[in-house]
Amino acid sequence: MGLTITEKCIKKSIVAGDWQQRGSRIGLRAHQTLGYDVNAVMTFLALDQLGIDRVKTEVSVQYIDHNMLQADYKNADDHLFLEQMCAKYGVICARPGSGICHQLHLEYFGVPGKTLIGGDSHTPAQGGLGMLGIGVGGFDAALAMAGHPVYLAMPQVVNVHLSGQLPPLVSAKNVILAVLQKIGVKGAVGKVLEYTGPGVATLSVTERSTITNMSTETGATSAIFPSDDTTKAWLAAHDRQADWIALAADDDARYDARLDIALDQLEPLIALPHSPGQVVPVAEVAGIKLDQVMLGSCTNTALPDVLQMAAMFKNQRVASHVDAALYPSTRTVIKAALKAGAFGALVDAGVRIFEPSCGGCNGCGFAPQSHGVSLRTTPRNFAGRSGTADDQVYLSAPEVAVASAITGVITDPRTLAWEPAEYSVPTHFERPANLFIVPEPVTTVTYGPNLLPLPQFGQHAAKLGGEVLLKLPDNVTTDDICPAGALYLPIRSNIPAISKHSFQTIDPTFYQRARDAAGGVLVAGNNYGQGSSREQAAIIPRYLRIAVIIAKGFARLHLANLVNWGVVPLIFADANDYAKIHAGDQLQVALAQFEAEPTVTVTNLTQNTTFTAKTPLGKADRHTVMVGGKLNAIKESEAQTCD
Amino acid sequence: MGLTITEKCIKKSIVAGDWQQRGSRIGLRAHQTLGYDVNAVMTFLALDQLGIDRVKTEVSVQYIDHNMLQADYKNADDHLFLEQMCAKYGVICARPGSGICHQLHLEYFGVPGKTLIGGDSHTPAQGGLGMLGIGVGGFDAALAMAGHPVYLAMPQVVNVHLSGQLPPLVSAKNVILAVLQKIGVKGAVGKVLEYTGPGVATLSVTERSTITNMSTETGATSAIFPSDDTTKAWLAAHDRQADWIALAADDDARYDARLDIALDQLEPLIALPHSPGQVVPVAEVAGIKLDQVMLGSCTNTALPDVLQMAAMFKNQRVASHVDAALYPSTRTVIKAALKAGAFGALVDAGVRIFEPSCGGCNGCGFAPQSHGVSLRTTPRNFAGRSGTADDQVYLSAPEVAVASAITGVITDPRTLAWEPAEYSVPTHFERPANLFIVPEPVTTVTYGPNLLPLPQFGQHAAKLGGEVLLKLPDNVTTDDICPAGALYLPIRSNIPAISKHSFQTIDPTFYQRARDAAGGVLVAGNNYGQGSSREQAAIIPRYLRIAVIIAKGFARLHLANLVNWGVVPLIFADANDYAKIHAGDQLQVALAQFEAEPTVTVTNLTQNTTFTAKTPLGKADRHTVMVGGKLNAIKESEAQTCD
Repeated sequence: MGLTITEKCIKKSIVAGDWQQRGSRIGLRAHQTLGYDVNAVMTFLALDQLGIDRVKTEVSVQYIDHNMLQADYKNADDHLFLEQMCAKYGVICARPGSGICHQLHLEYFGVPGKTLIGGDSHTPAQGGLGMLGIGVGGFDAALAMAGHPVYLAMPQVVNVHLSGQLPPLVSAKNVILAVLQKIGVKGAVGKVLEYTGPGVATLSVTERSTITNMSTETGATSAIFPSDDTTKAWLAAHDRQADWIALAADDDARYDARLDIALDQLEPLIALPHSPGQVVPVAEVAGIKLDQVMLGSCTNTALPDVLQMAAMFKNQRVASHVDAALYPSTRTVIKAALKAGAFGALVDAGVRIFEPSCGGCNGCGFAPQSHGVSLRTTPRNFAGRSGTADDQVYLSAPEVAVASAITGVITDPRTLAWEPAEYSVPTHFERPANLFIVPEPVTTVTYGPNLLPLPQFGQHAAKLGGEVLLKLPDNVTTDDICPAGALYLPIRSNIPAISKHSFQTIDPTFYQRARDAAGGVLVAGNNYGQGSSREQAAIIPRYLRIAVIIAKGFARLHLANLVNWGVVPLIFADANDYAKIHAGDQLQVALAQFEAEPTVTVTNLTQNTTFTAKTPLGKADRHTVMVGGKLNAIKESEAQTCD
Repeated sequence: MGLTITEKCIKKSIVAGDWQQRGSRIGLRAHQTLGYDVNAVMTFLALDQLGIDRVKTEVSVQYIDHNMLQADYKNADDHLFLEQMCAKYGVICARPGSGICHQLHLEYFGVPGKTLIGGDSHTPAQGGLGMLGIGVGGFDAALAMAGHPVYLAMPQVVNVHLSGQLPPLVSAKNVILAVLQKIGVKGAVGKVLEYTGPGVATLSVTERSTITNMSTETGATSAIFPSDDTTKAWLAAHDRQADWIALAADDDARYDARLDIALDQLEPLIALPHSPGQVVPVAEVAGIKLDQVMLGSCTNTALPDVLQMAAMFKNQRVASHVDAALYPSTRTVIKAALKAGAFGALVDAGVRIFEPSCGGCNGCGFAPQSHGVSLRTTPRNFAGRSGTADDQVYLSAPEVAVASAITGVITDPRTLAWEPAEYSVPTHFERPANLFIVPEPVTTVTYGPNLLPLPQFGQHAAKLGGEVLLKLPDNVTTDDICPAGALYLPIRSNIPAISKHSFQTIDPTFYQRARDAAGGVLVAGNNYGQGSSREQAAIIPRYLRIAVIIAKGFARLHLANLVNWGVVPLIFADANDYAKIHAGDQLQVALAQFEAEPTVTVTNLTQNTTFTAKTPLGKADRHTVMVGGKLNAIKESEAQTCD
């Protein structure tokens, strides 16, 4: 039987489990890992507990692209710590300001057919060149770096079949917006989106990467394109011809589902506040007045994007009431754009140009005004993510964003008269000289005052429970649980400090109530923990002595983080029981048989009722949870090996 | 009798007092004003109280260059508020990201011979083209915009006589560092530094501006160069030939003092932490390991600086343990540098390039790590100003900074082998199209939740006093009183919020103690309130009901702010009395005769002693203080006019 691209990649990296059984637990070995500054502090703290000298991967790369504002010592302390830890463990470290992890990785490290475990939810961006990229939390990233397998459920593979060619002014971002329009923000949970069909050849590697990157917004485990002549040319353009292999699905590959996208039928689309899944044609919301436009960050700021934007801005101006900004993705892109003379038009138009970084996407700069209406080419628009709690963020392709920046209102670019954009993408990219620090052994690592040791948790009792501290709706994001933004990212690895801000957008009294109650239970709807890979969204509840979360469903990445940090995730056996629980109820969960049996009985002491819940975890993960998390489980297994 | 340049300028703008009497109170009318975002919020709130429709100046310009990080809604709310207020009052507003106020003003607005009142302490930067620039607090800036005179003591004029020509790798920053080395941070209090001599012709306008800008660090009221053929060429290069006039001191002009600087004898100098007055030759501290290098902000990022830095970085790299950043000063400079192909070498070397703004200079980004050693081309290095409380900031010229960034340690650039830098400064600068918003009338102004009304204070009782809440040393800065940095600037106009952080670097208990005591007295050493023009450093104590400050001496700009906000400034008649007071003593000041008589008796109730103090204020200012500040005084005088 023929194989999908996904199966071919997984066959190469699987070390445990059966890839032929969809949904079964498999363990993958990372050929490569990547991490970014905010999450990687925890990664390295964990690595220090795992007792290795050097990372066991082919390549591990550390990026510094999120916490770039440096309003006090904290971010700079983190940067130094990461550089020293990289030297200690043999990790390549990108200098601060070299660029955004996904695009830099695409330029310098990504390899078709191999598996990348990345401590960032948008790790599927490498699928643009046929690499299987899977996002994990910082702790799982540490496990991958230490040579441990990363476990997940063998995903279903969905064939997204592309036909035709994109029309003018309708670029690749609209492909993934169209997918989101069709399947929504949990439409691909437990699945890999595999792009095939004649439309593939019409898309560049960076266009493909925009599509796979933002596939994360569908809940997908990963997303991947074939590796073809376009991929070969991309690698050659970055002096990496040797990394190329051809990779495509076999003709008789079997997919679990199929989604057809006719590229030539697409029109400019836009995601409305506050979800990347709220997609409508731009024409439906045209005319809405904008306060700002952001061109960035890990989607849509590759060289062709920048050249296209510059061409569109030529002899045009940003509207006087609009603040517009560009975050180019990498220094490589900047160097090539300088050579192509692209920045002049942007400077003239009045576009603010920031250093290559994630920037405003997660509120590290360029936050809009109160109630500000912002149009962005970024992958996410969760409420408040921009740094402004009452923001109104829309997501679109660059052509929509540029046209709208000029007119000052949301605009379908096809309604304006444009000179055809004239630019050419070079066949060879010059490499800036000073992007990476190649690791040299260090003897000391500097822990600033904001760098605390890894939290340690003990094993669980046979009965857990407490007050329902929050009853949450569907689609609660990791941003809700643990805020992003320049005010919070610098303290994200400082659990006592960041926990004070947990759930603050939902209920500002949460932290104090949780402290006063000395623990409790969370009840949630579907897709709990969607969004980023930040494991602090699991650590914070655990730190606040919340050991059980009962939901209608969990986002994949967050579920893995709950296991790693010893939080018991339960799913209502009957979803109707969700409605019967009230905030403030006292619940008790009987876990004496939890390792043997995934179904548990929950007693509502307040209402004097019981209901059944079931964990989605396999036996090994249930054990990990009960001993208090992955680190305890690893130490236990090492102790047994020594016995 | 011949006149100095300073006298010629003052003669043109004086509306009250006698310019021929050094030290007497004179009132100047502003031909132009400038403001920057942080202080200007207060300026416009004050303008709303002054009952005018349009500003009364020839040109008023608002810049947005400090609060650029936008970590939440506050800065963007301020930007919008300022743009709308500019439209309301007929002020030209530079779009956020157009550039740093002093350099933009030099390019587009500064006029030789005229007087600029600027709500920023580095307003003397315009002295580089023969304009008299005087820094004031935000309230005085509002008065100037409303057509009221700005009062100050007629300064003495010091002739800084320049001979010879600067040697290679010793640029203009070393001239002002040499001045600071000779006279220190209060060496020019009550004085204007007027630069003459054959050395003047060897310096460009931007070099001259670096020198006058940083003359502020000597405590000078202003600093000024002649307007000559170099000035004419600068104005012509910016399409402003018509603004030129020749301006020079008469041959028989009389100066109050003279300082000789032989340019050809200068060597690379450096200011040590934490004062711009702690100047030594670079050679004395060569070899100190650096953590970061900042190339910016209002000094040393004009086009020749950027071209020189790029030439020096060509084929070189920033040392791997050093983080280096450039803040180009304006979009005009960026456009010209792009045309000259200057950015490639910086990108290659690994220099982080930020948008044109004050940036890291006052902690709005690029803060160093804990205990971080940072070398900067900025004008100030007060402790903690970088955003990192325990920083170690050195100040130098760009050549020292670039050489040190490459070697990783403080380096005299003459000790390295350099190819002679090859670049040419254009004779014409192209103007980016979208720098300024030309005011159009608006009907609404948006007040975000962080924008509070102007604080209102009442008149003083005949006896004031209370506990000595702080006994402060010499040279307390406005940064000490009211912190700068990205964490605090967004709340600087929100007095209840910012007051919680007052004096926090000196005594973190201060705010709570002041609240608990419901007022009190501050005792200080010499040069109290040196540094920036921020009037919040006067408003905060007043808000905390501290009505009296007794010091050995006050910085000029801060003294004016104390008057405007109704704080009584007193100077020990006998400086030895300073030593006799202890923190916690209860003082009582008899002010019944204060308007008639500048000398007052202070009773130390705790020690049962008395001593004499004298205010440096004239009669009119004493009245202003006693009625509770300038706004009250103006309203009172308007009421009397109506009687």
